[in-house]
Amino acid sequence: MEQQTSPETGFRTETDSMGEVQVPADRLWGAQTQRSRVNFPIGVERFRFGRPMIRALGILKKAAALANAELGQLPRDRADLIVRAAQEVIDGQWDAEFPLVVFQTGSGTQTNMNANEVIANRAIQIAGGQLGSKKPVHPNDDVNHSQSSNDTFPTAMHIAAVEVLAGTTIPAVRQLRDTLDAKARQFGHVVMVGRTHLQDATPVTLGQVIGGWVAQIDDAVATLEHAMAGLCRLAIGGTAVGTGLNAHPQFGDTAARFIAQETGHPFVSAPNKFAALSAHDDLVNASAALRTLAGALMKMANDVRWYACGPRAGFAELKIPENEPGSSIMPGKVNPTQSEAMTMVAVQVYGNDAAVAFAGSQGNFQLNVYKPVMVHNVLESAELIADACRAFDEHCAQGIEPNEERIREHLENSLMLVTALNPHIGYEKSAKIAMTAYRDNTTLREAALKLGHVTGEQFDQWVRAEEMTGPKA
Amino acid sequence: MEQQTSPETGFRTETDSMGEVQVPADRLWGAQTQRSRVNFPIGVERFRFGRPMIRALGILKKAAALANAELGQLPRDRADLIVRAAQEVIDGQWDAEFPLVVFQTGSGTQTNMNANEVIANRAIQIAGGQLGSKKPVHPNDDVNHSQSSNDTFPTAMHIAAVEVLAGTTIPAVRQLRDTLDAKARQFGHVVMVGRTHLQDATPVTLGQVIGGWVAQIDDAVATLEHAMAGLCRLAIGGTAVGTGLNAHPQFGDTAARFIAQETGHPFVSAPNKFAALSAHDDLVNASAALRTLAGALMKMANDVRWYACGPRAGFAELKIPENEPGSSIMPGKVNPTQSEAMTMVAVQVYGNDAAVAFAGSQGNFQLNVYKPVMVHNVLESAELIADACRAFDEHCAQGIEPNEERIREHLENSLMLVTALNPHIGYEKSAKIAMTAYRDNTTLREAALKLGHVTGEQFDQWVRAEEMTGPKA
Amino acid sequence: MEQQTSPETGFRTETDSMGEVQVPADRLWGAQTQRSRVNFPIGVERFRFGRPMIRALGILKKAAALANAELGQLPRDRADLIVRAAQEVIDGQWDAEFPLVVFQTGSGTQTNMNANEVIANRAIQIAGGQLGSKKPVHPNDDVNHSQSSNDTFPTAMHIAAVEVLAGTTIPAVRQLRDTLDAKARQFGHVVMVGRTHLQDATPVTLGQVIGGWVAQIDDAVATLEHAMAGLCRLAIGGTAVGTGLNAHPQFGDTAARFIAQETGHPFVSAPNKFAALSAHDDLVNASAALRTLAGALMKMANDVRWYACGPRAGFAELKIPENEPGSSIMPGKVNPTQSEAMTMVAVQVYGNDAAVAFAGSQGNFQLNVYKPVMVHNVLESAELIADACRAFDEHCAQGIEPNEERIREHLENSLMLVTALNPHIGYEKSAKIAMTAYRDNTTLREAALKLGHVTGEQFDQWVRAEEMTGPKA
Amino acid sequence: MEQQTSPETGFRTETDSMGEVQVPADRLWGAQTQRSRVNFPIGVERFRFGRPMIRALGILKKAAALANAELGQLPRDRADLIVRAAQEVIDGQWDAEFPLVVFQTGSGTQTNMNANEVIANRAIQIAGGQLGSKKPVHPNDDVNHSQSSNDTFPTAMHIAAVEVLAGTTIPAVRQLRDTLDAKARQFGHVVMVGRTHLQDATPVTLGQVIGGWVAQIDDAVATLEHAMAGLCRLAIGGTAVGTGLNAHPQFGDTAARFIAQETGHPFVSAPNKFAALSAHDDLVNASAALRTLAGALMKMANDVRWYACGPRAGFAELKIPENEPGSSIMPGKVNPTQSEAMTMVAVQVYGNDAAVAFAGSQGNFQLNVYKPVMVHNVLESAELIADACRAFDEHCAQGIEPNEERIREHLENSLMLVTALNPHIGYEKSAKIAMTAYRDNTTLREAALKLGHVTGEQFDQWVRAEEMTGPKA
Repeated sequence: MEQQTSPETGFRTETDSMGEVQVPADRLWGAQTQRSRVNFPIGVERFRFGRPMIRALGILKKAAALANAELGQLPRDRADLIVRAAQEVIDGQWDAEFPLVVFQTGSGTQTNMNANEVIANRAIQIAGGQLGSKKPVHPNDDVNHSQSSNDTFPTAMHIAAVEVLAGTTIPAVRQLRDTLDAKARQFGHVVMVGRTHLQDATPVTLGQVIGGWVAQIDDAVATLEHAMAGLCRLAIGGTAVGTGLNAHPQFGDTAARFIAQETGHPFVSAPNKFAALSAHDDLVNASAALRTLAGALMKMANDVRWYACGPRAGFAELKIPENEPGSSIMPGKVNPTQSEAMTMVAVQVYGNDAAVAFAGSQGNFQLNVYKPVMVHNVLESAELIADACRAFDEHCAQGIEPNEERIREHLENSLMLVTALNPHIGYEKSAKIAMTAYRDNTTLREAALKLGHVTGEQFDQWVRAEEMTGPKA
Repeated sequence: MEQQTSPETGFRTETDSMGEVQVPADRLWGAQTQRSRVNFPIGVERFRFGRPMIRALGILKKAAALANAELGQLPRDRADLIVRAAQEVIDGQWDAEFPLVVFQTGSGTQTNMNANEVIANRAIQIAGGQLGSKKPVHPNDDVNHSQSSNDTFPTAMHIAAVEVLAGTTIPAVRQLRDTLDAKARQFGHVVMVGRTHLQDATPVTLGQVIGGWVAQIDDAVATLEHAMAGLCRLAIGGTAVGTGLNAHPQFGDTAARFIAQETGHPFVSAPNKFAALSAHDDLVNASAALRTLAGALMKMANDVRWYACGPRAGFAELKIPENEPGSSIMPGKVNPTQSEAMTMVAVQVYGNDAAVAFAGSQGNFQLNVYKPVMVHNVLESAELIADACRAFDEHCAQGIEPNEERIREHLENSLMLVTALNPHIGYEKSAKIAMTAYRDNTTLREAALKLGHVTGEQFDQWVRAEEMTGPKA
Repeated sequence: MEQQTSPETGFRTETDSMGEVQVPADRLWGAQTQRSRVNFPIGVERFRFGRPMIRALGILKKAAALANAELGQLPRDRADLIVRAAQEVIDGQWDAEFPLVVFQTGSGTQTNMNANEVIANRAIQIAGGQLGSKKPVHPNDDVNHSQSSNDTFPTAMHIAAVEVLAGTTIPAVRQLRDTLDAKARQFGHVVMVGRTHLQDATPVTLGQVIGGWVAQIDDAVATLEHAMAGLCRLAIGGTAVGTGLNAHPQFGDTAARFIAQETGHPFVSAPNKFAALSAHDDLVNASAALRTLAGALMKMANDVRWYACGPRAGFAELKIPENEPGSSIMPGKVNPTQSEAMTMVAVQVYGNDAAVAFAGSQGNFQLNVYKPVMVHNVLESAELIADACRAFDEHCAQGIEPNEERIREHLENSLMLVTALNPHIGYEKSAKIAMTAYRDNTTLREAALKLGHVTGEQFDQWVRAEEMTGPKA
Repeated sequence: MEQQTSPETGFRTETDSMGEVQVPADRLWGAQTQRSRVNFPIGVERFRFGRPMIRALGILKKAAALANAELGQLPRDRADLIVRAAQEVIDGQWDAEFPLVVFQTGSGTQTNMNANEVIANRAIQIAGGQLGSKKPVHPNDDVNHSQSSNDTFPTAMHIAAVEVLAGTTIPAVRQLRDTLDAKARQFGHVVMVGRTHLQDATPVTLGQVIGGWVAQIDDAVATLEHAMAGLCRLAIGGTAVGTGLNAHPQFGDTAARFIAQETGHPFVSAPNKFAALSAHDDLVNASAALRTLAGALMKMANDVRWYACGPRAGFAELKIPENEPGSSIMPGKVNPTQSEAMTMVAVQVYGNDAAVAFAGSQGNFQLNVYKPVMVHNVLESAELIADACRAFDEHCAQGIEPNEERIREHLENSLMLVTALNPHIGYEKSAKIAMTAYRDNTTLREAALKLGHVTGEQFDQWVRAEEMTGPKA
């Protein structure tokens, strides 16, 4: 995980306002990144910032350079160098140059500086200069021009979150949703025992059951999309405390416009920069939306595994694909492993959300210093849900089939169908039939014929489960 | 808490499908309510359903009767009796007749039956009949006509939540918000030390600080209003499993229309009844919105108490009202008790939300059986936030004043203002001034004059904190 | 809920260090309590401190008076007056005189003063003095002698928590546990299909299943008892900041000794008072222990309702008592309402715990000011679990019976028993028998005979599920 | 992250009970591992099982082989091969052969099989056999002998948790604790303003303040150690459903004995295997103990950054090391970055704990299928706390120094010291002095002299803050 410096290349000296630092000679990062690596060896294996945040920082720095050039804050040629280097960061060429972890300065300053340093040094390389010379591109004065960590980092947080939610999470959820929706249509004719309080109840169709899952997912996606609208408001332009000190008054709007162009998402400069730096309620809302989605997926995955439980002594009304050996000797023992993975993802998303919401409440004065941990958990949840939906879709949902024999057997045994006799023979006789069937452990039909209240023909004509599932069936 | 039956009045016999039950003779409730009182003595002191749910059940039963009459499902005169009785429930005349608690059947069946029984018996009273006779109004066949607990209870949940959020929570939050907004305008001229990482930073105005709080609250209210739109979709019409079995096909839409008329909120029949019974994601979203609001209020209340800490050895930049004796001997020790109450409310709301979201994930098949605990926690959070906002507004926010002397002293001592000299004497000399002031423990002005880089006149002209607070100041 | 003052009695004037306050003339509380009622109308219906905290404050004040007398800090006769008044508070005679709610000063100061005022005024009454005169017993100087809210309130928190856990929670949990333990022994002979991943697996006995629940409960109770040991360490003696300023050096130990005598629990003075005031990790641990217990109860309650699901189209291996009408027409639909109440209690306890743990992290400097909300949630969880365990025991657990016919049918149909043939006919033939039974949808026995690998006699001799359940069966 | 197979080496065919699978030719894993890689591409970057679980599986498999040999279940030479291969796994030579992630089968079956396959193939290599031949060592029949995933995986969970807590977490916490403890002793003489409700209060020593942190940490470690005792009970011997079917009756005890020998921790076979498979309350308790510890660390880290806030307009009573550039122009702006990292770790631990506790409640029948996500979060929390404590210790705690000038200034200005005059001049005159100082904005001493109640000599003799800090100072 840790990049090694070969003995040949050795180290070069980088400086920041605190003085000199030895940096591996072949690295693009500079002094502040190096200090952070030393000071924060926390969760190094699992908590390095990944592609989405690195890409977002590249987008931000590119947009900032373009805005600075447009507003006359940076010479065009220097801005162009920054844009070229930032584009490479966007494209993923320099991910290994971002070694820092989540648990660092709570403003993400060091990751902002990491981006500044890498882009400055890469621009210097492009210009034929010397790494660490800060000429012709200075990490602070040029790459970070008109910016402060306090507005850039939350800007990158929002960019990353919107891109992952729109580009990864929602497509994956929709993939699963579309499979389920097709199954709902396909199995609209399959009438089965409904269950409330886990007890046998009046019938539903399998299409209705699956349609309920789809409706939950659709609503959760709509909630997520509403949360994304909040994330499209960017802190950029606020600089250190929200006043925009040292930035051109147009900088925030201009940079946001370039970010919107680059990403295709309707990013704007946040209406209140003080709130945008000292709180991250838009991220809290996005996390909550992911939690609701996780809850919906958990309900669906639980239903799937309960409907599939068996093969003999359970409901066994659904068949799911057998992906791994369940039992080496017992055929039909198909462990619902995709449901298990999905529900584990759901509880992880719940936990991540708890961390996000806690962190979101802990701002003080002009800054909330839980930024990295907030964006980390939102991105992790967004990606886990995407991965789990794809896996569940491909390895489970697409293969779900009704066990029609079992479903019919349950339905025929059901005592609940007796309600269909009410209009014909009255409540009292109907109840007596049900009670007889229950006591004798027979079917309703057998009990009805035994009691002589109906003929077999009448029974078959009147007791039609499919007519009890409503106009939607 | 427990209603007593006087020995004189004794008991009367009520019946349900399980048989006879002895009910206190002067009570309007019937057999099923009485069974629940005996079976669920859980949290009796704190967890009885209160006004909002009782009122919501009244609204629902009134609307159902009107819908049944309109659709020809109930004779108009019987419907009228139900409407009159339900109206009294709406108006709060019979709250003592609702003795049941949250921890009961997870579908809220017994509270639905409580409403049916009370309304039926009260209608019987109005009609001059005999309590418990079920004539001329039957609790199941008439009051619950076209309904099942599984669709009525979640319908009442949504009605109660929307009414409390719209009628109690949001007005109280707005009351506090308006006070803060006025303070933000009033103190727009007060320039103070900004703080990031808790450390002195470049200046902001008190107006900007308070405006940041207002922006968070405004956003949180908007999020809450979006969640309320989801709550306006009602399960009514779904009956037992979502198929609408035994209800007129128009019943859901018609009842929702009457509910909208009664409440003035845009309630409609939910597009997917299977989701509406087996999940309560709209409530989970509302709970999450309350959590975000609580987080915003917590940040504000924390800022207030930190700004007010002192009187001597803290920030002491805000003065807050002294409502209780802080210390009998030490003047100026004003404990920020309203902040303390507000932040305790915030953590309670976080806890309640955790319960709601957990419960929301636990549906199985056609029913989620955590309905009562979900609505209880949402309503409790909504009401606590309202109470706390009103108390905070009246006993703290309205009395917040800047300690201008202290603020000015901090600002004058601040080393951060040195950045204002950069354009005039350059970065290096400015930094030297700051360093000198820091080492000598003097003001910037003193250090600047001592080093001879500027005259006193120049210093006063160039170093103007109010010009560093941006165009918004 | 709110006590009214009759026009006749009117008001009397009480004073505190801030001045005069009008108090209902017939009330024992004084100025500070009255101020708090006005300033904190938050959650008045559900969040008043109840019996356990009032009793704990009485115990504390009694013990403090005895300690002060023993150490020569208070004249014996005045101490005796306090002891008599405090005893009445302990005994529950003055609960109505404690009107304050949780959401107040975060140190609980006003509830401590409520106790001081009520006890002082009641002592004055006993001595024949005049309410509000503070003679011969002064609420601060005498009842609160050697104390500060900052050490008394957390002391009362611990006393209340230990008494409720030991006196209410654990006995109720044990009542349920003993019922289950007896059922485990009673049904040790009932061999049933085991289930892993919800799928049929090798057999277990019902005794083993229930014994697993009992083991979880036993472990959870042991964890709770360990947490209670931490709660036996009291803040008393720390006074305002932990230094014990203004208290006799022996006061903490002496008061703790009297508290131990009064309660029968091994209370001691906390070894570090600074931690005892500024953090409440012992409460956080107790809350976590209640959460673990709630999780164990949730698993048990879930198992019960799944085993009982049916009557036809579910597992239906357990019968549970029918306490309420499930369906008016369908016999055998027994809704598992006690399981539903129990699992709702469990999610509430999880939510309460989230609030407690959040609050526990938020101390600053010498004080954590989330005391009331912490103790409220711990006590509420402790009481809810007790209530739910008693209800579940009496209305469900005691009536649990195996549906032996169904259990046997499932077991006989199970394919998993084929493993018992391995030693006799080898793995390959056994697997073929299982596969044949699965494909033909027959029993193992039928398949085995059909394939001719064993005789019926051999099958019955070799395939004995009860011998697969281990030495514990 | 993903291992690539070079075109030269290609693939080999492995088989399991479902058939053939192509596995990269140079890999030690087999068919089931390969299936899982394909089926569960979820969180691949961040959620692979790491060193602690791989090592624990090695320990378990070694102990199982030794137990099987001792009990005559495996030939000694085959057991020896397994022991040699398992030892290499323990030593970390084959970590790259464990590619699977957390989100898989909820029993961890595939990771158990991963261990079986790697150890079998490595043993085959050692014996000179052919990879995938299952001769002379079979992954199921030999490496997994007497075991099932359902008992081995939770056994490995406990081993990993105990080893990380004992070997990583507690030593790191103790390292920080010892630094703080030394600081507490070193600064026992520094008297400073105490603060309650964030307001100035009576004095404490810095030693007392830091000692309070140490006491919290000590208690939290003790709680963690108690939780570890629960983790020392192992599921091994329970096999698939808890009955121990197919295992020698002595297997659990014997294997646990070897595990204890290997690790030096007092592992035993769990007293109730049904609970050990279907619930993981010991892990929930360990997670809760980590949460309490995180809460204690959060309080400490918050205190540090608040005490250090400044340099001018804050408390500024502590100096902390400057590790990174805070502001390029403002000297003295030392951002409390280690506090920020620590508190972010704390909220992450809270979130992880929420996931663990949720998962812990979701067992059904004979198995809880959230095993991987539970152990993942516990280990992550344990490691994050360790990393953060070391970083905080080395980069912050060791360098904490009091700003004695500031502390003295605050103390001298404090109005709270007036209480020291009470015994000499009475409460009333003392209060008047305090009020005068507050109104005139002077020191107590100046006010006292102005009012003429004491001489300067008397004031200096009577008002001694250090004597107000109690016998512990």
